[in-house]
Order: sequence, then C-alpha cells, then structure tokens
Amino acid sequence: MYGYSADREAYLKRLRRIEGQVRGLQRMVEEDRYCIDILTQVSAATKALHAVALGLLEQHLGHCVAEATAAGGREADDKVTEATDAIARLLQS
Amino acid sequence: MYGYSADREAYLKRLRRIEGQVRGLQRMVEEDRYCIDILTQVSAATKALHAVALGLLEQHLGHCVAEATAAGGREADDKVTEATDAIARLLQS
Amino acid sequence: MYGYSADREAYLKRLRRIEGQVRGLQRMVEEDRYCIDILTQVSAATKALHAVALGLLEQHLGHCVAEATAAGGREADDKVTEATDAIARLLQS
Amino acid sequence: MYGYSADREAYLKRLRRIEGQVRGLQRMVEEDRYCIDILTQVSAATKALHAVALGLLEQHLGHCVAEATAAGGREADDKVTEATDAIARLLQS
Repeated sequence: MYGYSADREAYLKRLRRIEGQVRGLQRMVEEDRYCIDILTQVSAATKALHAVALGLLEQHLGHCVAEATAAGGREADDKVTEATDAIARLLQS
Repeated sequence: MYGYSADREAYLKRLRRIEGQVRGLQRMVEEDRYCIDILTQVSAATKALHAVALGLLEQHLGHCVAEATAAGGREADDKVTEATDAIARLLQS
Repeated sequence: MYGYSADREAYLKRLRRIEGQVRGLQRMVEEDRYCIDILTQVSAATKALHAVALGLLEQHLGHCVAEATAAGGREADDKVTEATDAIARLLQS
Repeated sequence: MYGYSADREAYLKRLRRIEGQVRGLQRMVEEDRYCIDILTQVSAATKALHAVALGLLEQHLGHCVAEATAAGGREADDKVTEATDAIARLLQS
C-alpha cells in the first residue's frame, strides 16, 4: 500500500485518457494532419502526464517520505534524496 | 503532404511504443508499484513524447516554414510565430 | 533558520555565478553574437537555476516538511501541498 | 547583424531585469527567507529567461534560418538542425 493506492481508480482513469491521447496522435500522423496541430496534442499529453506525476509525488511526500522522516536516520535522508532525484528527472524530461 | 509524411511509419512506431509505456504505467498503478518507479516511467514517456515533438518540429521548420519564408510576406511571419508558439507550449508542458 | 541555512555561502556562490552568466548574456547581445550561442548560454543559466532550486527543495523536504509531517495534522498536509505547488511552478517555467 | 539586433535595447533591458531577479535571490538567501518563496522567485527568473530565449528564437527562425532555407542545400538543413538542437537544450534545462 502506498500513498496513491486509495486513489488508484482515479489514476487509472487519467492514464487511460492519456493512452487515448497517444492513440489520437497516431491517428493524426496517419491522416497526415498539420504538424503544429500534432505538436499541440503532444503538449497536452505531456502536461497530463506531468499532472499525474505531481499527484503521485504529493501523496508520496505525504506518506512514504513523511513516515521515513518521522523514523529519522539514514533512511529518512535516502527517501528525500530519492524524491529529489525523481523531481530532477521530471524537470529534464 | 507535410515534412514528416515521408517518415510516417517511423513516427507511428515511436508513438505505439509510447502508448505501450502509458499502458505500462496503468499496470504499475494496478500492481501497487512503488511511487518513485512510476515517476521514473512517467519521465521516460514524457521524454519520448518530447523527442517525437522535436523530430516533427525539425521537419516542420525545414519544409512548411522554409516554404513560407521563401515566399515571404505576412504568411512567412505567421508561420514563424506559429512555430514559436508551439515551442513555447512544449516548454511549459 | 531553514534547511538551507547551513549551506548559505555555497548557495550565494552559485547564485553569484548565475548572475555572472546573465551579465555574460548581456555582453553577448551587446556584441551582436550569434543567436544560437546566446540560446546555449540561456540554457546553461536555466539549468544552473534549476540545480539551485533542487538543492533548496531537497533541504526543504528534509527539514521543514519533515518537521511538519512529524507533527502531523492539517499543517503537515499544507506543507506537502505547498511543496508540490512549488515543484509544479518549476516544471512549468 | 542578426534577427534580434534591431531589438537589442529591449533584450538588454529584459536581461538586466533578470540580473536583478538573480541578485534578489541572493538577498533572499542572505536574509534567510523561506525556501518556498525563494523557489517561487527561481521559477520567475527561469520563466523570464525562457521568454527571452523564445524571442531570440523567433527572430532567428524568421531571419537566419529563413535566409538559409531560401538559399537551400546542405546549409539550410544544417541551420534547421542547429535550431532544433537549441530547442532540445531549452527543453531539457
């Protein structure tokens, strides 16, 4: 059980919608749609993925990281570093 | 026919792989996988989407925008502004 | 006193270097340097700013947020939401 | 002379304002200000840098790249690739 588990259905719904956006992109390429319109859809899909990531991150910080920092010690530091590294990867993607 | 049309199959292949990544994300949520591992996968999918966008953009600049700027006039400016706006949306997504 | 206070000098040094990068950008514009070289410098300055932000964020999560979540209650949630909102702003900038 | 040269003064003004923002960040660190407020200022500076980059890019596409693509040949392709690489660096910064 993780922080996000209680909202599992909501996350699945959002990810299915993103899957639909990516299939929509394939249709656009197949139908030879205008490049800029495709780029706009790519931005929408990326934005939706980042929104999912921020939701997961918030629950991760409020549960997993909070528990580790409450316990203290080396593991607390490791959890914080791990979360920061994940944020760094999001920023660069 | 747009700049990217000649590479349509390659783009479709990449987009199908991204669709697979998004389905993989759904599986991870269903299997209650560790939040940070899910975030890493989100970053990978976003990175892949941005790579597709950069490919489309390069061909758009080399074809559609190039033709418009060769013709000159108001339409040339509009195409350049339109491409820059699309880049701005990618940066904010 | 915040999480980053112990490293104040190191942050100041990094921010002074970024200030130097921004002054370097002004010099490049004054000297009519090639656009792409200026863009490369802008990316370097942005990357350095994001690195500072990630450092501050890591210490914020390990101190301020950790203390709040250890205390629990409404304030803990607020701190986590506040940090997530800050990350969202970084992602969109 | 490049695309942005006619607007040199406006770019210098914007870059001086960004320099002021980075000096403001140093003051905030010196005064031990709250981490989240510093992060908000970092996002503002990054956003301002990206806005400068988008302005330069638009003029670069409308002038340097447009001239190269009008001339055609290998150099046109190189200019488009060079601009796309610069956009990729901005996206990852």
